[in-house]
Amino acid sequence: MKSSLKISETVVRRLPIYLRYLNELSMRNVQTVSSQELGNRLDLNPAQIRKDLAYFGEFGKKGIGYDVSYLIEKIRQILKLDQTINVALIGAGNLGVALCNYNMYQKDNMKIQAVFDNHPDKIGQTINHLTVLPLSQMHEKIRAENIRVGIITVPASEAQNVADQLVEAGIEGILNFAPTIIKVPEHIRVHYADFTADLLSLAYYLE
Amino acid sequence: MKSSLKISETVVRRLPIYLRYLNELSMRNVQTVSSQELGNRLDLNPAQIRKDLAYFGEFGKKGIGYDVSYLIEKIRQILKLDQTINVALIGAGNLGVALCNYNMYQKDNMKIQAVFDNHPDKIGQTINHLTVLPLSQMHEKIRAENIRVGIITVPASEAQNVADQLVEAGIEGILNFAPTIIKVPEHIRVHYADFTADLLSLAYYLE
Repeated sequence: MKSSLKISETVVRRLPIYLRYLNELSMRNVQTVSSQELGNRLDLNPAQIRKDLAYFGEFGKKGIGYDVSYLIEKIRQILKLDQTINVALIGAGNLGVALCNYNMYQKDNMKIQAVFDNHPDKIGQTINHLTVLPLSQMHEKIRAENIRVGIITVPASEAQNVADQLVEAGIEGILNFAPTIIKVPEHIRVHYADFTADLLSLAYYLE
Repeated sequence: MKSSLKISETVVRRLPIYLRYLNELSMRNVQTVSSQELGNRLDLNPAQIRKDLAYFGEFGKKGIGYDVSYLIEKIRQILKLDQTINVALIGAGNLGVALCNYNMYQKDNMKIQAVFDNHPDKIGQTINHLTVLPLSQMHEKIRAENIRVGIITVPASEAQNVADQLVEAGIEGILNFAPTIIKVPEHIRVHYADFTADLLSLAYYLE
């Protein structure tokens, strides 16, 4: 039932941010947290936070707040992070290596399980226990390892080609770091990590 | 007059994406583009694009479309990219190196002008013609080079400390890659390049 509930994109986008801070609290053995504290730490309006959490039936207790571990469990459930989701990364340049070395994904059950690159210098290298494979092995590996998400960290000029191969191999979601729009069939979910746009749009707000 | 016009954040965030594609068209000597073509390439609704561009008084000619180079000039003006904006990057790990090597910024007049890191192995290294400096030199360098934007690529635990130093040195905007919320005075603009949230929120949309 819960999973059929439609949560707005903006709220979905905030859930990992709540989750990250709740995990921090949990590691410090903090058991409850108020919307006020959450708002203060995350620079969000407490009323907004209460609204977000009420969205999936979560209500803090007045004067006590939210139960941290229960909220973590609930958000993980909603984000479907209570299952392991295998991830492939394509493009083992500096950015790709940075992402592989970033262990946060593993804690949250999104796990980079395979790394691909076509450069002869890269193939066979080991990055955080993963051996870089040529793209020719991508289709087979994605199916064999039940990989559902692809992270694209190749140059813009190669991104569409890689996306096509990911779709062909049966991937369900893509996080695209290449500074270009990729075209995929409608049932594939694409998120953009477009930091050049993040940076360039910053200029607008300078005096 | 133009600069006092308030453009919504969503539109501002799309402008660099228009700009990137318009630059591509310009390099291919394409002189006009319709909202239909733009929409098709950027996976946006053409009506939305017309609305965005009308926001700052830009109207395509029926049957001809928009003048590519004029639109580029206009968007650059609005984003204030017609001036050079000097940028500092703090944290010369894999991610920091990837960003320094990424020359896109330079084309758009946002230029990484200084790189800082406190690790002894990093200090003195050269990344894309920039020598990595210790954080102790940050304040002086930022003022001397008129650096207005800081990119934070240090671990989450160090991000607030770095942000405080950037603010102290007189920075106006921050692009934060550390997976944590940073607190800054209200007049400082912060954008988040939070790819762990981009990735984790993707899970929600998988079947």
